[in-house]
Amino acid sequence: MVNKIAAFGEVMMRLQVPGYELLSQANTLNYSFSGTGVNVLSALARFGHIGYLVSQIPANAVGDAAVSYLRKLGITESFVQRSGNYMGMYFLENGFGSRPSRVTYSNRLESSFNRAAEGTYDFLEISKKMDVVHFCGITLAMNESVRTHMKNFAKAVKANGGTVVFDCNYRPALWGEDGYEKAKPHYEEMLHLADYVMMNEKDAIYTLGMKTEKESPQEQLMELIPEVAKNYDISVVAGTHRSINRNNTHSLSGFLFKNQTFTFSETLTFPVYDRIGAGDAYTSGIIHGELEGFSPDETVHFAASAGMLAHTIVGDTPMASQSEVLLAMSKSVGDMER
Amino acid sequence: MVNKIAAFGEVMMRLQVPGYELLSQANTLNYSFSGTGVNVLSALARFGHIGYLVSQIPANAVGDAAVSYLRKLGITESFVQRSGNYMGMYFLENGFGSRPSRVTYSNRLESSFNRAAEGTYDFLEISKKMDVVHFCGITLAMNESVRTHMKNFAKAVKANGGTVVFDCNYRPALWGEDGYEKAKPHYEEMLHLADYVMMNEKDAIYTLGMKTEKESPQEQLMELIPEVAKNYDISVVAGTHRSINRNNTHSLSGFLFKNQTFTFSETLTFPVYDRIGAGDAYTSGIIHGELEGFSPDETVHFAASAGMLAHTIVGDTPMASQSEVLLAMSKSVGDMER
Amino acid sequence: MVNKIAAFGEVMMRLQVPGYELLSQANTLNYSFSGTGVNVLSALARFGHIGYLVSQIPANAVGDAAVSYLRKLGITESFVQRSGNYMGMYFLENGFGSRPSRVTYSNRLESSFNRAAEGTYDFLEISKKMDVVHFCGITLAMNESVRTHMKNFAKAVKANGGTVVFDCNYRPALWGEDGYEKAKPHYEEMLHLADYVMMNEKDAIYTLGMKTEKESPQEQLMELIPEVAKNYDISVVAGTHRSINRNNTHSLSGFLFKNQTFTFSETLTFPVYDRIGAGDAYTSGIIHGELEGFSPDETVHFAASAGMLAHTIVGDTPMASQSEVLLAMSKSVGDMER
Amino acid sequence: MVNKIAAFGEVMMRLQVPGYELLSQANTLNYSFSGTGVNVLSALARFGHIGYLVSQIPANAVGDAAVSYLRKLGITESFVQRSGNYMGMYFLENGFGSRPSRVTYSNRLESSFNRAAEGTYDFLEISKKMDVVHFCGITLAMNESVRTHMKNFAKAVKANGGTVVFDCNYRPALWGEDGYEKAKPHYEEMLHLADYVMMNEKDAIYTLGMKTEKESPQEQLMELIPEVAKNYDISVVAGTHRSINRNNTHSLSGFLFKNQTFTFSETLTFPVYDRIGAGDAYTSGIIHGELEGFSPDETVHFAASAGMLAHTIVGDTPMASQSEVLLAMSKSVGDMER
Amino acid sequence: MVNKIAAFGEVMMRLQVPGYELLSQANTLNYSFSGTGVNVLSALARFGHIGYLVSQIPANAVGDAAVSYLRKLGITESFVQRSGNYMGMYFLENGFGSRPSRVTYSNRLESSFNRAAEGTYDFLEISKKMDVVHFCGITLAMNESVRTHMKNFAKAVKANGGTVVFDCNYRPALWGEDGYEKAKPHYEEMLHLADYVMMNEKDAIYTLGMKTEKESPQEQLMELIPEVAKNYDISVVAGTHRSINRNNTHSLSGFLFKNQTFTFSETLTFPVYDRIGAGDAYTSGIIHGELEGFSPDETVHFAASAGMLAHTIVGDTPMASQSEVLLAMSKSVGDMER
Amino acid sequence: MVNKIAAFGEVMMRLQVPGYELLSQANTLNYSFSGTGVNVLSALARFGHIGYLVSQIPANAVGDAAVSYLRKLGITESFVQRSGNYMGMYFLENGFGSRPSRVTYSNRLESSFNRAAEGTYDFLEISKKMDVVHFCGITLAMNESVRTHMKNFAKAVKANGGTVVFDCNYRPALWGEDGYEKAKPHYEEMLHLADYVMMNEKDAIYTLGMKTEKESPQEQLMELIPEVAKNYDISVVAGTHRSINRNNTHSLSGFLFKNQTFTFSETLTFPVYDRIGAGDAYTSGIIHGELEGFSPDETVHFAASAGMLAHTIVGDTPMASQSEVLLAMSKSVGDMER
Repeated sequence: MVNKIAAFGEVMMRLQVPGYELLSQANTLNYSFSGTGVNVLSALARFGHIGYLVSQIPANAVGDAAVSYLRKLGITESFVQRSGNYMGMYFLENGFGSRPSRVTYSNRLESSFNRAAEGTYDFLEISKKMDVVHFCGITLAMNESVRTHMKNFAKAVKANGGTVVFDCNYRPALWGEDGYEKAKPHYEEMLHLADYVMMNEKDAIYTLGMKTEKESPQEQLMELIPEVAKNYDISVVAGTHRSINRNNTHSLSGFLFKNQTFTFSETLTFPVYDRIGAGDAYTSGIIHGELEGFSPDETVHFAASAGMLAHTIVGDTPMASQSEVLLAMSKSVGDMER
Repeated sequence: MVNKIAAFGEVMMRLQVPGYELLSQANTLNYSFSGTGVNVLSALARFGHIGYLVSQIPANAVGDAAVSYLRKLGITESFVQRSGNYMGMYFLENGFGSRPSRVTYSNRLESSFNRAAEGTYDFLEISKKMDVVHFCGITLAMNESVRTHMKNFAKAVKANGGTVVFDCNYRPALWGEDGYEKAKPHYEEMLHLADYVMMNEKDAIYTLGMKTEKESPQEQLMELIPEVAKNYDISVVAGTHRSINRNNTHSLSGFLFKNQTFTFSETLTFPVYDRIGAGDAYTSGIIHGELEGFSPDETVHFAASAGMLAHTIVGDTPMASQSEVLLAMSKSVGDMER
Repeated sequence: MVNKIAAFGEVMMRLQVPGYELLSQANTLNYSFSGTGVNVLSALARFGHIGYLVSQIPANAVGDAAVSYLRKLGITESFVQRSGNYMGMYFLENGFGSRPSRVTYSNRLESSFNRAAEGTYDFLEISKKMDVVHFCGITLAMNESVRTHMKNFAKAVKANGGTVVFDCNYRPALWGEDGYEKAKPHYEEMLHLADYVMMNEKDAIYTLGMKTEKESPQEQLMELIPEVAKNYDISVVAGTHRSINRNNTHSLSGFLFKNQTFTFSETLTFPVYDRIGAGDAYTSGIIHGELEGFSPDETVHFAASAGMLAHTIVGDTPMASQSEVLLAMSKSVGDMER
Repeated sequence: MVNKIAAFGEVMMRLQVPGYELLSQANTLNYSFSGTGVNVLSALARFGHIGYLVSQIPANAVGDAAVSYLRKLGITESFVQRSGNYMGMYFLENGFGSRPSRVTYSNRLESSFNRAAEGTYDFLEISKKMDVVHFCGITLAMNESVRTHMKNFAKAVKANGGTVVFDCNYRPALWGEDGYEKAKPHYEEMLHLADYVMMNEKDAIYTLGMKTEKESPQEQLMELIPEVAKNYDISVVAGTHRSINRNNTHSLSGFLFKNQTFTFSETLTFPVYDRIGAGDAYTSGIIHGELEGFSPDETVHFAASAGMLAHTIVGDTPMASQSEVLLAMSKSVGDMER
Repeated sequence: MVNKIAAFGEVMMRLQVPGYELLSQANTLNYSFSGTGVNVLSALARFGHIGYLVSQIPANAVGDAAVSYLRKLGITESFVQRSGNYMGMYFLENGFGSRPSRVTYSNRLESSFNRAAEGTYDFLEISKKMDVVHFCGITLAMNESVRTHMKNFAKAVKANGGTVVFDCNYRPALWGEDGYEKAKPHYEEMLHLADYVMMNEKDAIYTLGMKTEKESPQEQLMELIPEVAKNYDISVVAGTHRSINRNNTHSLSGFLFKNQTFTFSETLTFPVYDRIGAGDAYTSGIIHGELEGFSPDETVHFAASAGMLAHTIVGDTPMASQSEVLLAMSKSVGDMER
Repeated sequence: MVNKIAAFGEVMMRLQVPGYELLSQANTLNYSFSGTGVNVLSALARFGHIGYLVSQIPANAVGDAAVSYLRKLGITESFVQRSGNYMGMYFLENGFGSRPSRVTYSNRLESSFNRAAEGTYDFLEISKKMDVVHFCGITLAMNESVRTHMKNFAKAVKANGGTVVFDCNYRPALWGEDGYEKAKPHYEEMLHLADYVMMNEKDAIYTLGMKTEKESPQEQLMELIPEVAKNYDISVVAGTHRSINRNNTHSLSGFLFKNQTFTFSETLTFPVYDRIGAGDAYTSGIIHGELEGFSPDETVHFAASAGMLAHTIVGDTPMASQSEVLLAMSKSVGDMER
């Protein structure tokens, strides 16, 4: 079934040093445009849905390039506003082995998206047309005006019977000092509005301030997530545990909590080419599984495999089709087909 | 001993997306020219022989580039005809980890090689000058006219006392529906003419329709290959088993069946940079070992190591010299020499 | 006014050697996707209209890349069919000064577009929705089946009150021997259906076989074009004269014949970066001028300036917005704005 | 004579689309770091002086890259402060022929330089060590805090007997509405402190609000500049007239007003590779000529030739040595020396 | 008629900064392999002859790359010796407009070619097989041992009835102080052996120390060249006059002196992409014209056009075929053929 | 504490084939400038010290590029002489998996550094200003004149109370036949002057000709190093054992011998991106630890981690800051920080 899915969020320009040089060594950058919403919509477009970005993008040559890029990804631009002058940017220096990747942000608080005036978006109109709308904790970290947009949008979706997806996605650098304290009320407001929530036990402990005696992440997860689901009346909670190995591989396992029951994927270990945005592929897999009526086991397995594949793709944005994810789920790596 | 070795086959243009982007992400392609015959001749030229390609290449700028490229590889062009307008091409998107590589072909059936008129090549003349001629199952899949060229050439070689090498190389996509059935008579005809044959148990079962009760590939191999050698009166049968691991490595073991005896290489596991054409390096190692009078053990070890090295080289075409293969056979990886 | 404009035509993959190397010197290609229809629609989208391509594109990775590229250009893909395996391609080696550019085609006759089955397109449905549909003589050169598609489409547009644009665009290499003779009846059929026609005196003389005693192209034009307009009942005939100078500049002048009157642009001389597709920018300027109700003088000046700008853009496809064309019409070259 | 020359100003990151593609076509950027001060110091370092940048640069990976780049240019970093998070950036799309270059800025007002706290720089200490300090009107356009830094620095230089150079460099986009009115008092303050001033008649008319009945720029210049020199007690006023031709060439002539006398260079016409920063090369030539005691004629000729050469260099920053400028002044273009 | 043509000379590695950056700005180099002999043979191979290089190239990875490159150019390597460790190299920074190109050499005196031991080459054998052998004044500048090789080779050619071509090609930097004096006896020795000589009046005046009262280069040429031809008994003397314009164009005219008669080409003015090696294209045109029995007028026109085209080709080495030169001689620049 | 540290040594130009192609396949090289001294100074500059290179670099465009590069690395150039014409160069072809990297040198014996005249450097003056001076066995291999420079410099440092660091760094290819025998007296001379020495048991056995009955490298090390320290009165001896695995990883362990006591790091195994120069990072870590008064355990751990990180950096030259090394010592690989 083809669903209409919107995402509300900022489009960032990614400026990546090619290969493994540092910014102080190189003189060339690859650029692309991404963002949690962009990534989720691109993935879902490849699973057969129609994705609409709700955002504001500058009315200049950089903005033109961003919109062209979104179109190329297959994202529908009809709810994209064009106004303002600046776009959030980040620089990426690829890590290798024992040297971690490094991200340096430009001043995104003055971006077109983060400075969008009241009344920029017609949330009522949009909410009527969409089946699902995706929100993300990064947006929540920006400023009061964007937070207001976001909450109004989520309320309008709820009011019109749409599904609200909320990815907790807490970024310490954006919230600054006493960040968890500042963030908590906003997160709680969104959790009360959300149907599907992406999070794990760390969000529960740090952002929501929940307590547990358990020590292992797995035990903490199993104690706290059901509580969260109950407190905020959330139908689906999903997330991942990730560990990063020194040999350029990661290990990833996903969980899904629904109808009082946990379902876990097996732990996948795989070589990593580009880590950014892989979490959004997992989110997209969960949304797709739920929309298609997959069993919890199928959904979490599909989402984890989509997440794994996203680590093999250049750029933040997942590019795998449903059939490619299904193939990766089968677990044997085939030779190339000729 | 320097041998004169010809190969009959198509030259393809390889158009590869650099790095790990998809065709829908990138805007640049690296190009080179290859083909089973090209690869085998290039490898054998590096082992000290003289390689002659027998093929037809378009009489235009693309063909000029192909011929320049062949010369660069050290292949002698004196039997290359220049006529027609089109060259077979394929696009390659590199896989990474759990994401397999992807090959997309252009319409090669209209290529200069596949449309070569009767009488294009003077097979009698060529056969008189050559010690060994290499043929390949991919050519057999094209059309009746190319098959006729190929069989006439093989017969001429046989008649003039040369050695016929035939690589079974069955490609399902080229034969289409009921492919094995269609292919069988042509394969049988070539096997009757061949002295050295590259194949494994899968070719015996699927293409030749042979039966076995055995279940493991190794047991099937050991049952079927001696039968094939006997049925078609083949002096050397050789091939490999390959498995593809999820961490960007492959495992490869080679076998050689000769004088009723199997010889096996150990299983080599190694990181893979470029998989295409590595089988042709193995073939070249077998041919070289036989021509040089290596022991079966040396030959299969040499061929497997040549195959391993070919996975570390950019492009389809093997580039290792004999001394580099011998070094790789010694199995310890040295530091760079300075 | 925003118009809905469709174009019927093949999408080609352009494979360009970067810089000024030859195919036999380089090892990298830049690729993009274009075609007369693509170019016209992209230009018109930048002038504020909505462009729909009517075409068939292969259902594989190359086709995916083409569709992504069309989306990036702002072309609506809703009438693009996905089927078949092959796409027309051409290689471009850039000329410099006294050395002309060189184009080498792949075998496009087997492309998805040129092999599209009867019933592939719902021309009736499309014709009802479109204001203007663009056709081109290159398509006419392909095969009977594509010609039938094309004529049926043009008739449906006519029947539904839409405007038919026909660009004569005769390509000698595609028609082969006795090409003008073969082409004439098909061109005449299209001219009878067309409202706006892109051509000059050469098309009248060679393709339509018209006679004139005049010697200069300008005199021939002024004698023959009014006759053509009358014979085939065409409301607008437009075209250009181009001369190519040895110092990397071209000179271009445009004409427009409408209501029995010729209007000429002045002759523009300008440095050329990428010549291909510039004629399509001129066509787009004419269509836009007519749709917007520009005076003939404004239209031909706008079209010639759009054509001039297209020579400064990388790739076949015009990228200038209406405001950029208007700026270029003002004729003084400004310093960059900071 | 080796002079110690400081410049006060912002370091910008230049992000340039390579070749002639637009931002919406390409996916790669070349980056470098520049700024009026950086350009002037780099040029003067190549003329044999020691250049010190007085600026603040972010304490992150982007700032590290900027500082490495300044060092590479031969600029001494001892007065560069490292603090804050952001750097001004601009995107550059190269024009070609009739299509002008296009510059798009990021939000530089939040840059480390423009947010530098009071007391960031020890202007007294720096002024004692420097012979000449260069200031620029772009800095004046930023905010009150930077203007205060700038004026304090100029006063300290004056008080310590150093030479103050001020380049008027009015940028309309930075001052916004009623910009000239807002700018005037600040410009006047700097002019009163300055010894050498870079400007032409346009600055006198627009920024200083001076009146003239003359119509040609040349006549206006000759009427107004002596008045400016007198009003603000400036010993050297210098500047250029530039015209931009459609064939990728510019024409440039320089003037120098000193001791009540105008000296003019001839008008140079030359092909342009990279226009940005060429004005700073002219400024550097004037400063160098004055410091070395060149005759006015030598100085203006040297400066104009330095300016011309800067148009042939990749990037904003002049790279020509004194001997290369002298060679260019000789006016015949030689073959390469081998 | 297909002639066998050898050239004796060094192969140099050319390391070129791409685009217009300086070595101190860039971080990438394009490399290729060239030399006067290489260039002449490549051009003549494209005119239908067979070219053999007589040289010594290092027996290492750099030498392997050089030999591959020669093969790619279509040069036969059978007389190329492989020994020694070093190859002459030069760095090229492209000039632009008023900024000249810059060449920086590595220490080529220790190259494999310049250190080739006595007996390295079997000149007698080679001379018997060749119709024409090309020598060049650059080789003469190296050291006594190379000069001895060169003179022995020329004598062997002469003795075996072959044609000796000698290009004077005086390079001041290689001969050092009192260079002309040192060079003269060696040049005279070669001129006595030569049949065709490439030179102009400057060589006569400076290298041979001839006197003239005439002032213009043209008058000097017409006085001195007949004298040279007579003194040294040379059947064909040919050369060019070149002037370099500031707008990235050059002007070139060629002359041919034969049978006591001068023939001149018209002066060609054309945009220049890569100047190095264009003189060798002129030489090749003269050789080809003489071998094919062109009229003097055809020969000099062909050679000048070949020279012009070589300025439009990337790299030192001419790439134009005979048909491309003939097309360029027709003087109108055509549009690309499609 | 900020120390002033000089290094005496040659600057080499590194010309690297990008990616994994061979020199005979590619046509582009990346270039940078390095050398043992350069690498050590760059690393120490990133640990907070001031590094001065003592060397001679050609006075041409290649030398300009080298000096710009050193400045970019943060190395102070005040003791760099500019004279001569040539620079040592080496070509690097990256290995992959079972295929080792390959280095090909140019003729460095004629380099500006190796031909520096007597009196080029004012060693007395330099020695008075420096705290530590680094020397290397590669320099010792060059020629008598450079050896004399080197020993005079070391004696001056010793006489002025500075610390002499000597890295044994024996390169067989540079010493030629009977190399160890030739090298021994020079090594002994330097060891007598040195305070810190980089070496392992192989240097003791081969270069110093010491004997041991032990068989394992570890036992040999523990027997011979204390003897060396005693014989030559060296306060710190440090070095590494490295093993190279076939899966693109290396294993490295470091030791430090001081005050009669061995301290060992654990064995680190890590993916390798660029192996060259990693030994210099280890050296720098040892020097830094000693200068900062780290415990032996901290020092050897710091040095081994610095060495590990250097394998992840593009180019020969270490780029890690002290805080980055400390982070790597913590041993868990973190996710990127955002």
